Amino acid sequence: MTQHITRHETNARMSRIVLHNGVAYLAGVVAANRTGDIKAQTQEVLARIDALLEQVGSHKKKLLTTQIWLKDITADFQGMNEVWDAWVSEGEAPARATCQAHLAAPDILVEIIVTAAL
Amino acid sequence: MTQHITRHETNARMSRIVLHNGVAYLAGVVAANRTGDIKAQTQEVLARIDALLEQVGSHKKKLLTTQIWLKDITADFQGMNEVWDAWVSEGEAPARATCQAHLAAPDILVEIIVTAAL
Amino acid sequence: MTQHITRHETNARMSRIVLHNGVAYLAGVVAANRTGDIKAQTQEVLARIDALLEQVGSHKKKLLTTQIWLKDITADFQGMNEVWDAWVSEGEAPARATCQAHLAAPDILVEIIVTAAL
Repeated sequence: MTQHITRHETNARMSRIVLHNGVAYLAGVVAANRTGDIKAQTQEVLARIDALLEQVGSHKKKLLTTQIWLKDITADFQGMNEVWDAWVSEGEAPARATCQAHLAAPDILVEIIVTAAL
Repeated sequence: MTQHITRHETNARMSRIVLHNGVAYLAGVVAANRTGDIKAQTQEVLARIDALLEQVGSHKKKLLTTQIWLKDITADFQGMNEVWDAWVSEGEAPARATCQAHLAAPDILVEIIVTAAL
Repeated sequence: MTQHITRHETNARMSRIVLHNGVAYLAGVVAANRTGDIKAQTQEVLARIDALLEQVGSHKKKLLTTQIWLKDITADFQGMNEVWDAWVSEGEAPARATCQAHLAAPDILVEIIVTAAL
């Protein structure tokens, strides 16, 4: 049990990516530009996830599981799903669960946590 | 790091089950029949999880971890637990965490996310 | 795929720790003494996590990912973070996501779920 742990973009609070035993654990990702609506925020979140996965040699085709947290699931479930469904690689969707949750700042509409294979 | 990923019941949005490196990641499971109370919905969710695990050669005895999301944790924690505790294989309970969360439709009282070993 | 599962502090509902394939999955941890504020509760939660990890030969330096659930993220995000940031081993922070969630009892201010390498 001497599997190596590799961390990326680590600060005192969290790492953006942690690699262990062939799995990449990503921190929850939110949009940096939060002036937009749910579709704009979801687009930015997924683009950031693409970039993080690329950084460690993974890809959205290798997603294992995800949790999606929405500030307002009634208002924004459909908009998030439109962007999400278009983004997912055909035939390679992860296991997924979605719920409503108040997030760390009031203008965060969506936070997405993914785990991917390397 | 060429571990295979296997997906089951995959559509454009999610896979019901994703297998990787000896672990089965299940999507969040809700009841299809949501006319019942928390006990009825929990029973159906757990029966669906049994069926999903069986489909990939796993079993509730091999559960690793679970998150349970309840629409109303004050009203429904006890009822969910009665059904859950009776379902768990003796001596084989997973790590667990439970919270209240608004879910994707207003009649969903409980959603359960499990990860199991193969 | 005959990896062994080891469970610790198992009862009819959950195990405090489940080990599989080099990974320790911990149940959500809350403070036992819940008369204190967010800092006191976070301190106790993290001390309990330290003890659980030690019990299986792991350590906070080996954290992979965490979810932090706060009863009141507006009031308590900063206080939780002060304690959290001081606790994390330098350069060894896990992937992290934090949201607000009503928890199993009204005096629970914080619940933390961690996954660590062995």
